[in-house]
Amino acid sequence: MKALKTKYDLFKQKTYIVIYGSNTFAGRLFDLALLGVILLSVLLVMLESIEKLDAKYHTFIVVSEWIITVFFSIEYALRILCNKRPLKYVFSFYGIVDLISILPMYLSFFVPGSRMLSVIRALRLLRLFGILNLVHFTGQESQLKLAIKASRTKIIVFIYFILVVSILLGAIMYVIEGPESGFTSIPVSIYWCIVTLTTVGYGDIAPVTTLGQVIAAFIMIMGYGIIAVPTGIVTAEFANAKRNTPDMDGKRKCPSCTTIIYNEDSRYCHHCGEKLTNG
Amino acid sequence: MKALKTKYDLFKQKTYIVIYGSNTFAGRLFDLALLGVILLSVLLVMLESIEKLDAKYHTFIVVSEWIITVFFSIEYALRILCNKRPLKYVFSFYGIVDLISILPMYLSFFVPGSRMLSVIRALRLLRLFGILNLVHFTGQESQLKLAIKASRTKIIVFIYFILVVSILLGAIMYVIEGPESGFTSIPVSIYWCIVTLTTVGYGDIAPVTTLGQVIAAFIMIMGYGIIAVPTGIVTAEFANAKRNTPDMDGKRKCPSCTTIIYNEDSRYCHHCGEKLTNG
Amino acid sequence: MKALKTKYDLFKQKTYIVIYGSNTFAGRLFDLALLGVILLSVLLVMLESIEKLDAKYHTFIVVSEWIITVFFSIEYALRILCNKRPLKYVFSFYGIVDLISILPMYLSFFVPGSRMLSVIRALRLLRLFGILNLVHFTGQESQLKLAIKASRTKIIVFIYFILVVSILLGAIMYVIEGPESGFTSIPVSIYWCIVTLTTVGYGDIAPVTTLGQVIAAFIMIMGYGIIAVPTGIVTAEFANAKRNTPDMDGKRKCPSCTTIIYNEDSRYCHHCGEKLTNG
Amino acid sequence: MKALKTKYDLFKQKTYIVIYGSNTFAGRLFDLALLGVILLSVLLVMLESIEKLDAKYHTFIVVSEWIITVFFSIEYALRILCNKRPLKYVFSFYGIVDLISILPMYLSFFVPGSRMLSVIRALRLLRLFGILNLVHFTGQESQLKLAIKASRTKIIVFIYFILVVSILLGAIMYVIEGPESGFTSIPVSIYWCIVTLTTVGYGDIAPVTTLGQVIAAFIMIMGYGIIAVPTGIVTAEFANAKRNTPDMDGKRKCPSCTTIIYNEDSRYCHHCGEKLTNG
Repeated sequence: MKALKTKYDLFKQKTYIVIYGSNTFAGRLFDLALLGVILLSVLLVMLESIEKLDAKYHTFIVVSEWIITVFFSIEYALRILCNKRPLKYVFSFYGIVDLISILPMYLSFFVPGSRMLSVIRALRLLRLFGILNLVHFTGQESQLKLAIKASRTKIIVFIYFILVVSILLGAIMYVIEGPESGFTSIPVSIYWCIVTLTTVGYGDIAPVTTLGQVIAAFIMIMGYGIIAVPTGIVTAEFANAKRNTPDMDGKRKCPSCTTIIYNEDSRYCHHCGEKLTNG
Repeated sequence: MKALKTKYDLFKQKTYIVIYGSNTFAGRLFDLALLGVILLSVLLVMLESIEKLDAKYHTFIVVSEWIITVFFSIEYALRILCNKRPLKYVFSFYGIVDLISILPMYLSFFVPGSRMLSVIRALRLLRLFGILNLVHFTGQESQLKLAIKASRTKIIVFIYFILVVSILLGAIMYVIEGPESGFTSIPVSIYWCIVTLTTVGYGDIAPVTTLGQVIAAFIMIMGYGIIAVPTGIVTAEFANAKRNTPDMDGKRKCPSCTTIIYNEDSRYCHHCGEKLTNG
Repeated sequence: MKALKTKYDLFKQKTYIVIYGSNTFAGRLFDLALLGVILLSVLLVMLESIEKLDAKYHTFIVVSEWIITVFFSIEYALRILCNKRPLKYVFSFYGIVDLISILPMYLSFFVPGSRMLSVIRALRLLRLFGILNLVHFTGQESQLKLAIKASRTKIIVFIYFILVVSILLGAIMYVIEGPESGFTSIPVSIYWCIVTLTTVGYGDIAPVTTLGQVIAAFIMIMGYGIIAVPTGIVTAEFANAKRNTPDMDGKRKCPSCTTIIYNEDSRYCHHCGEKLTNG
Repeated sequence: MKALKTKYDLFKQKTYIVIYGSNTFAGRLFDLALLGVILLSVLLVMLESIEKLDAKYHTFIVVSEWIITVFFSIEYALRILCNKRPLKYVFSFYGIVDLISILPMYLSFFVPGSRMLSVIRALRLLRLFGILNLVHFTGQESQLKLAIKASRTKIIVFIYFILVVSILLGAIMYVIEGPESGFTSIPVSIYWCIVTLTTVGYGDIAPVTTLGQVIAAFIMIMGYGIIAVPTGIVTAEFANAKRNTPDMDGKRKCPSCTTIIYNEDSRYCHHCGEKLTNG
C-alpha cells in the first residue's frame, strides 16, 4: 500500500515537471506540443465559421474538435491532480482560461451553437509568453509590464476625458447633421465621433453639411493633437523603466562586492559602502 | 432672531461641507449620487434621440428629465446660497456649466427642441476628476496638466502651420480633381485634405486621377511624417515633467547628507557613504 | 533738391519701420491689417470655388480680389523701394511668395482660369510666425525648428525605405487581387499600399480575396509598427533640443558675469572661469 | 601567358573598384548609372501593368526590359568574376536580390506571366543606402539600425499579443454581427479587427448593430491606447541610442582635463576652470 502511494507520488511529481516545468526536455516538448494543439484548435473553430468549408468538412471538423476537447480535459484534470495547491491553479488566470476553454463544447449538448465560444482557447496562446519567459525574455517583458502598469492610471483618466468629449461632440453633430446624413441618434453620433477621434474613419457615416464638415475637421485636428498624449505618457514611462533597469555595458562594478554601479557620479558603492575609483 | 440666524448659518455651513467637500461620508455620498444622476440624465437625452425608444417611452423620458432638472436647479441654488463667495462660483468653469445644464429645459417652453442641448450636462461628468483628485490622483493629474500646458503653444503653432498647408493642398487638389471626383469646392477639398493628413480617411471623397493619387500619396506620407511632431512635443514635455517631479513616495533620504536615495536596494548613501537604515 | 532727397529718405525709413518692423504701434497695426487682408483674400478664392455662391456674387468677389491684388502690388513695390538691399528681399522666401501671390491675377488677362492659383496667398499667412516671433515665441519656435532639422535626414532615409517597400508590396497585391478588386495597375496598387501603410484607409480600394486580406493585415500591422519609427526619431530629437536649451527656472547664475549655469555639476563658470558656489 | 594573366588580374581589380567601390569617380558614376537603370526598370514594369499604356507600347516596353535584363545579367556575372570571394557575394542579401531580379525574365520563356515578378528589382534600390553610407550617412543610419534592432524583440512580443486579442475580438464580432453586416466568417472578422485596431478603417466592413458598434468603439479606444506602446518602445530605444552615441562632430575637448565641452559658447572648462580656445 505504501509502495503504491509512493509510486503515485512519484507519478504526480513527474507529471508536474512535464506539465508545469519547461527546463527538462520532456517539459519543453509538452509545452510546444500543447501550443501546437491550441493553435490547431483555434484554426478549426475559424475554419468552421467559413460556410463553404463547413459544408464540406463538417464531420471532420467536429470530430477533431471533440478529440482536442477530450485532450484538453485530461490535461486540465492532470494539472489539478499533480499540483500541490490545486485551488491556487484553479483560480489563477490560466486556470480559469483552461476551464472555459473546454466548457463550451460540453455545453453544446444542451445549448446548440455554444460551440463557437470555444474560440476563447485563443487566450491559451498567451502561454507562449510563460514558456519563453523562463528562457530569455525576462528583462524585455518585465520592462514592458512595468511601463504599461505605470501609465495605466493616466491612460484611464485620459480615456474618461475623451469619452465625455465624445458624448458632447456626438450630440452636437446629431443636432447639426440629423438622421439624413446617417447620424440617426446620439449614440450613433458618439460612435461616429470615436471613429473619427481615433483616426479610424470607416466612412460608413460621414458629415455632409458644411458646418458638419467644419466641426469634423476640428475634431480630427483635435484627435491628431491628442493622439500624442497617450503616446507621450507611455513613452515617458518606457524611458523611465529603461533608465531604472539599464543595460550593463560599460558600467562600473564595485571592487569589493561586484554590485553594478548605475550612477556614473557615485563615489561610494550603494551596496557595501566601499569607496569607488573612477572609470 | 439671533438663534434663527445662527441656525441658518449652521445649515449653510453643513450644506457647504456636503456639497463642496468630499472628505466626510455625507460629502462623498452626495458626490457619488450627483455623478450617478448626471450619468442618468445624459443617458436619458441619448435614449430620447433614438426614435424607436422615444416613440415608446416619450412621456417617461420627459418626466424623468424634468425631475432631474428640478433636482439640478435646487442643487444650483444651494451651491450659490451656502457659498461665502457665490459670485466666484457662478463665474467659475463649473458654475457656468451647472447653469447651462439646466437652462435648455426651461428654454424648451419658449423654443421647442432646445431640450436636446441639455446634453451639455455631460461636461458635469468631469467633476469626477475633482472628486478623485482629492483622494489619490493628485500626482498623476498635475503631471498630465503640466505636460499639456507646456506643449500647448507649440501644438498651436503646429496646427496653424498644418491649416495653412491644408488650404494650399486643398486648392491644388480642387484644381486637379475637379467636382466630378467629389472635390466640389476648395472648402470641401480642404476638408478632404484634413481628413487625409490626420490619417482618418473616410473615403467619402477620394482622388481618382493619377496625378491626384500621386499628390494624395505625397500628402499621406507627409502626414505620416508630421504625426510625429505633436507626439514628439508632448512626449518631450512629459519626460520633462516626469524628471522634474519624480515619484517621491516612499523614497528614503540619507540621514547624514539628506541626498534622496532613488535605488531601493541601496544600503549605503551613494554620495557620502553613510550606512542607510531600511525605509 | 537735397531737401527733397532727405524727405524721400525719411519717407523710405518710416515706411521701412512700418512695413518690416513690428515694434512700433504703426508697424504692429500694419502687420495685423495685412494679415487680415491676406485672410480675406484666401477666403474670397475659397468662396469663388463654391459654385452656388459664385453664381450669386461673382462680380462682387472678382472686384474684391482685384482691389486686394492692387493693394498687394503696392505693398510689394513699397517693400522693394524702402529696403536698402531690395534684391535680398526679392529672392528671399517671402519675397518670392509675395510676388507669386499677385502674379496669377495679372496672368488671368492672358490665361483665363489662372486666377484660382492666387490661393498661393495662403502661404503669406505664415508671416504670422514672423510677427509673433519678435515678441514671445522665439524659444518655442527655434526648438521646433532645431528638432525638425535634426531629424530631417533620418526621416528622408525612412521615407525612401517605405517607398521601396510600397512598390514591392503594391506589385504583389496587383498580382494577387487583380483589376476586379480595384487594383487596376501597379501604380494604383502602390497608391493603395501607401493609403494602408499610413493608416489612412479610404476604402475606395480594398482587398477581397483571402490571401489579399492576409497580406493587407500584415501590411497594416507592419505600418502600425513602423509608424513608431518617425515618431521615435522626432521625439528623441525634441528631447535632445529640450535638454540643450533648457528652462531657466531655478538655474544658478555666475556671480561674476551672470551667465546662466545649465550644468548642475559645474564647479567653474563656463563663460568667465569664476569659481561657483553651490546652488 | 603570365602577362595575359596579369592583364586579366588587372582587369578584375579595376572592375572590382568600379563595381563595388564608390570612392573613385568611375565607381561613383557606375553606382549612379546602375541606380538609374534600376529605377527605369521598375518604372517599365509599372507602366506595363497599366493596360492602356501596355496596349500602345507593348513591344517597346518588352524590348527595353530585355535590354535591361541582359545588362543586369552581365553586371551579375562581372560581380562574381571580379570578386575574390564570389560565394560570399552570391549568398549575401544583395547577391540573392541581384539573382532573383534577372531570373523572372528568363523564366518567362517557360512560365508566361512570370515577367511581372521582376518588380522585385525594386529591392535593388536599397543599394542607394550603401552608396550614400560610405560618404556621410554612417552616424545617422547606424543609430536607426541600433534602435530598430534593440526594440525588435519587444515589438514582436507586442504584435503576438495583438494577434491573440484580434482572434478573440474577431470571433466575438462574428457572433454579434453575423454574415449580414459583412462579417462573413471568423477570419474575415479578424481581418476587420486588425483594420480597426491599426486605425486603418477601410469601411468595407463596418458594424451595424448597436452592440457591435459599442464593441467596435471599445476596440478603437483600445487601439488608440495601444498605438502608444510600439511608439513608446522605439522612442525609448532611440533616445537611448542617441544618448550612447552623442554627436561628437566638432565638439571641443578641454586641453587640461579632456572633458568634452558640449556647450559651444563655453569659454572656460566647466570641470576644471581652464581657459578654452575656440574650436
